[in-house]
Amino acid sequence: MAAPFNSHEGLVPEIREETEERIRATQTTQTEKATLCRQTMTATTFRVRPAQPQDCPEILRLIKVSCPRTGGWGMGKQVPGGGQKVVEAPQELAAYGNSPDAVKLTLLDLLKDGFGDHPFYYCLIAEVPDDAELTGTLTVGFAMYYFTYDPWIGKLLYLEDFYVMEPFRGLGIGSEILKKLSQIAITNRCSCMNFLVVIWNQTSTEYYTRRGALDLTTREGWHLFRFERKELLKMANED
Amino acid sequence: MAAPFNSHEGLVPEIREETEERIRATQTTQTEKATLCRQTMTATTFRVRPAQPQDCPEILRLIKVSCPRTGGWGMGKQVPGGGQKVVEAPQELAAYGNSPDAVKLTLLDLLKDGFGDHPFYYCLIAEVPDDAELTGTLTVGFAMYYFTYDPWIGKLLYLEDFYVMEPFRGLGIGSEILKKLSQIAITNRCSCMNFLVVIWNQTSTEYYTRRGALDLTTREGWHLFRFERKELLKMANED
Repeated sequence: MAAPFNSHEGLVPEIREETEERIRATQTTQTEKATLCRQTMTATTFRVRPAQPQDCPEILRLIKVSCPRTGGWGMGKQVPGGGQKVVEAPQELAAYGNSPDAVKLTLLDLLKDGFGDHPFYYCLIAEVPDDAELTGTLTVGFAMYYFTYDPWIGKLLYLEDFYVMEPFRGLGIGSEILKKLSQIAITNRCSCMNFLVVIWNQTSTEYYTRRGALDLTTREGWHLFRFERKELLKMANED
Repeated sequence: MAAPFNSHEGLVPEIREETEERIRATQTTQTEKATLCRQTMTATTFRVRPAQPQDCPEILRLIKVSCPRTGGWGMGKQVPGGGQKVVEAPQELAAYGNSPDAVKLTLLDLLKDGFGDHPFYYCLIAEVPDDAELTGTLTVGFAMYYFTYDPWIGKLLYLEDFYVMEPFRGLGIGSEILKKLSQIAITNRCSCMNFLVVIWNQTSTEYYTRRGALDLTTREGWHLFRFERKELLKMANED
């Protein structure tokens, strides 16, 4: 597999609880710092790499800060890494009338689901140097993906979420993430990469279309349907 | 996991080659027989169970016979298990101007991808008694699924493909498959079940909507996008 991570090293439950508190407390500070940090950056100072278990607190922070919940699916896709509109992240959140509390996923879920024997997702993260951080880096973007299957053509790479913090856009971080995702797709014999975009998000649709993505909903009529938990419970218990 | 299958028992490459030939040769015969067989069936004679490696030839036959290729995604969803329109399968194929040869997936792919150490898909199959078959049963439907991930709510069950042969519709096989899928979703702590439907397929959309499924494309604007292999190769090799 593209990103084999099989341990929960260095994160026991007590630390996880504390870390979640820290995420909430430092969310605004991190995004303010990012704006300052961006001023001294050049295009060559970021790095994109596969996530490790110890990156989970930063991934969760980015999931929470990234984008609005409009009903169900991956949020980061709505404001992709390559968007050129630069605003501060708290304004971005406010603009969508959303709250990080809407994220039900916990740090423990992220660890368990992404780094166990059977990972349900993989992540790439983008980081920049930051002496003020214990790790010496600040995580400024991420892409969450996994592999799906098509009974006609086999394996696909599915891009579930993709986000670069606003102050760090326009540096090529989004393009570098897409490049690495493409390489992972090809290495793993995937015939294509699928993802969902909210059609009213013009920045996103233009970003992907410019790079050659096809809108299969408009072209072929594919609609995303969902049975919510209530309907699943009803069907599961039918006589 | 819901369906742990870890062996390729009883299927060596030579047999696979032969079996693929057999699939092609017997496709029409099977569907003609199914029409006759249907006449003597009652609603209680079918069985829905997790697929085993030895079911792969039948799954591939159903994938090929099931539905038209209109560009990319799972076909069976276009004519779901509960559709009430009963026509013979060859007519159905012809009506969509399609050919089973459009399926690129081989029996070896199906075996390797679904029954290795890291399965990319799982299947339920529906079968009916048939003394004329060596196994004593005829496979008349299947559902292909896997688990995906949402960074806000965690694990989902994704229904990739779902098909019941036309002569066997109206017996409750589709409902039984949906019931079992719902149970698998709940057992595996999935918050919902997602799937794609081509919106012009009225039979399908009515079938799912009647059971309470929500169309998230119409309600929230989610569009399916795709980077084809050509674009992936281009991005992967960018400087």
